[in-house]
Amino acid sequence: LEEERMGEVTRIINGIPGAEVALFLESLPGEKRNAVWDLVDDASQGDVLVSLHDEVRDNLIEGMDTEQLVEATRDLDLDDMADIIVDLPEEVSNQLILSMDKASRELLDQVLSYPEDSAGGLMNPEVVTVRSDVSVEVVKRYFQFRGVLPTPVGDLFVVGRKGHYKGRVPIATLLTCDPKTPIKDIMDEDALAIPAKTPASEVAQDFEHNDWISAPVVDDKNKLIGRITIDDVVDVIREEAERSVMRMAGLNEEGDMFAPILTSSKRRAIWLGINLLTVLMAAFAIGFFEETLQKVTALAILMPVVASMGGIAGSQTLTLMIRGMATGQVGSGNIKDLLGREFMIGVINSILWAVVLASLTAFWFKNWDISVVIAMALAVNLVAGALAGVVIPVMLRRMSIDPAIAGGVVLTTVTDIVGYVSFLAFGTWLLLG
Amino acid sequence: LEEERMGEVTRIINGIPGAEVALFLESLPGEKRNAVWDLVDDASQGDVLVSLHDEVRDNLIEGMDTEQLVEATRDLDLDDMADIIVDLPEEVSNQLILSMDKASRELLDQVLSYPEDSAGGLMNPEVVTVRSDVSVEVVKRYFQFRGVLPTPVGDLFVVGRKGHYKGRVPIATLLTCDPKTPIKDIMDEDALAIPAKTPASEVAQDFEHNDWISAPVVDDKNKLIGRITIDDVVDVIREEAERSVMRMAGLNEEGDMFAPILTSSKRRAIWLGINLLTVLMAAFAIGFFEETLQKVTALAILMPVVASMGGIAGSQTLTLMIRGMATGQVGSGNIKDLLGREFMIGVINSILWAVVLASLTAFWFKNWDISVVIAMALAVNLVAGALAGVVIPVMLRRMSIDPAIAGGVVLTTVTDIVGYVSFLAFGTWLLLG
Repeated sequence: LEEERMGEVTRIINGIPGAEVALFLESLPGEKRNAVWDLVDDASQGDVLVSLHDEVRDNLIEGMDTEQLVEATRDLDLDDMADIIVDLPEEVSNQLILSMDKASRELLDQVLSYPEDSAGGLMNPEVVTVRSDVSVEVVKRYFQFRGVLPTPVGDLFVVGRKGHYKGRVPIATLLTCDPKTPIKDIMDEDALAIPAKTPASEVAQDFEHNDWISAPVVDDKNKLIGRITIDDVVDVIREEAERSVMRMAGLNEEGDMFAPILTSSKRRAIWLGINLLTVLMAAFAIGFFEETLQKVTALAILMPVVASMGGIAGSQTLTLMIRGMATGQVGSGNIKDLLGREFMIGVINSILWAVVLASLTAFWFKNWDISVVIAMALAVNLVAGALAGVVIPVMLRRMSIDPAIAGGVVLTTVTDIVGYVSFLAFGTWLLLG
Repeated sequence: LEEERMGEVTRIINGIPGAEVALFLESLPGEKRNAVWDLVDDASQGDVLVSLHDEVRDNLIEGMDTEQLVEATRDLDLDDMADIIVDLPEEVSNQLILSMDKASRELLDQVLSYPEDSAGGLMNPEVVTVRSDVSVEVVKRYFQFRGVLPTPVGDLFVVGRKGHYKGRVPIATLLTCDPKTPIKDIMDEDALAIPAKTPASEVAQDFEHNDWISAPVVDDKNKLIGRITIDDVVDVIREEAERSVMRMAGLNEEGDMFAPILTSSKRRAIWLGINLLTVLMAAFAIGFFEETLQKVTALAILMPVVASMGGIAGSQTLTLMIRGMATGQVGSGNIKDLLGREFMIGVINSILWAVVLASLTAFWFKNWDISVVIAMALAVNLVAGALAGVVIPVMLRRMSIDPAIAGGVVLTTVTDIVGYVSFLAFGTWLLLG
């Protein structure tokens, strides 16, 4: 029975795309994962490896011998090979490179010479190009002669004699125009190419805004060195989205959900440690008011309320800012407008919730003085949260720190300390002063 | 001078894609936004409107008269028109529909009959189809005769006599094969079509896993009713990513960064109100320990530490779970494995940080009893956070509540209450018992 089931799993596994097999493998704990991995056809293993997150991939690679790895990876597209080759054992990458012809080796070197998250690192260096002086008919005959085209089929790129980029021919135009038309008549010369050093996130925005399927990549001298296709861009967009959500919680987006427990514990420990430092700072601040707390225990009971509300208000503003910075909609041109707006929103909500909270507190503790204290502290902290939500990401960005990683921690530290200190200071002053 | 600058802005605005104009408009506060909007060519206004977030779009539409709106929207693709027509004033949509021919009207009706976030709502009903018995040469001649093809050019779809979907022809094959080949010889019959009711998020995953540029959409009877293209899928992916980040902070992803201040204040107020309720529950729980707090003020000083650490540990687990549920990697098959893992990670970090925190506290308060209390409470809350991080999203999902919206609030309520109560209860028992 067990064997029968394995046969069925094998059939399913080898009938779905590599990206889906990768997702499935990642969802399995260690032993099951290795068992299923053994069922994947040698020929599909490369595609699966390319789609896996780094940590899972590294582990599976560790369990494979040189021969298997060379077999799995040698037929990959050059852009995929460039992604994976840096993770392969030296023996395997040497064998892979030796098995390639000189031209492919040079193309691979070119991709590897750019950072992974730049246009040059994303591109596939194998591009079909045409000259501007031939006719559409010649191009079509060349395609038939070639017999195979790199997918997805996007625009055609036109180059000059020395490989310089001249323009694009939309594939739709190629299909619909008179076959005798010379390429130069249907070429779009205004369509700019992407410089190889462009960051991947900008490449993704260009694709989104222009609805491209493919785009040419050029080096410093405007020489066409590769093309980027929408399928790679979709991966960039998905990874970026995943990264910001994961990093906000102090997690690594390339991590394995089923990494060894000690490994995961160590990683989580770092984030807990950073948080412990910040909350101890808050506790230290509270410590200055020990005497007040002893005399008015109602303050101890209520103090988490002020701190928490400031954190919530601040994190709303922070989230807006982080999103706006990622899309390019928040910048030096409108920071002042935003700061003014968020300040006003903070003030309005301060008034609203100060009144509500003061009434609830008066009802609970039968003491209007405490109501006044909490209302004032809440107002201060909601406004502080709003301002911190604007200022912190701007400052972090200036220091080249990703606001998505550090923003939340810094913000909570500010709203905790402002919250506790303002509440307890007002309390000391009004109730004991 | 001012006029010269306006001229320059007009040139730039009308030289960039509609999606970029939309981003720029959204980054401007009210008056500036209207001024720039007036500079956009009538012909481009439709593309810009389609790319705007709902709230900004609705505001601009309000400021336009019927004639302008009809002019701006009547040349849109049918899928874009379907997106926007529901937001137009009835007078405009009536005029638009009247200006269409009967065939287009029927196609538009079909798109509108499916939910916006389903394959049917995403699709463009205008599809170029071919019969299986014609040759490649005939198809190519038809393209030339047609003169224009819908972009992006993706696979060709083959239909039977009654419009039933039969298979796909990859565009690369069409370009490379012998012109005499009949379509049926190069058609991929195994390539499944997307049922119109498929949710948009599943459509996006299918595109990602299969590297599609276009895919056919069929109705219940396997009749081809439209096609979805990668550019629309990219929008879905970006929107999904934005939505989860924004909703975690209680924000609406379709909102306007520069909405009227009172409108924004009202929206933020709701989230603050929900949070106030949860933190008041925590305060209420603290209230049961008033006597303890009065006698041992060190407990008041330290209590935020335990609550906060539990929240951090829980939110890490919660984030992992939410991501895993979105990709389909977390499900009934591995929830038990995950629960066991997260429990173990919680235990290991409990031991580590309990020891660290106990030492720090002993040093600070010169009192080992308090150290024992905080170590025990921290251990309890870190484990509670980890378990809640797994259980809460599973329960929310069963109740059809988006874990990304409600998960954080529910989790913090649990870790706050468990944190405060365990710390103060252990304190009462060990220090005063």
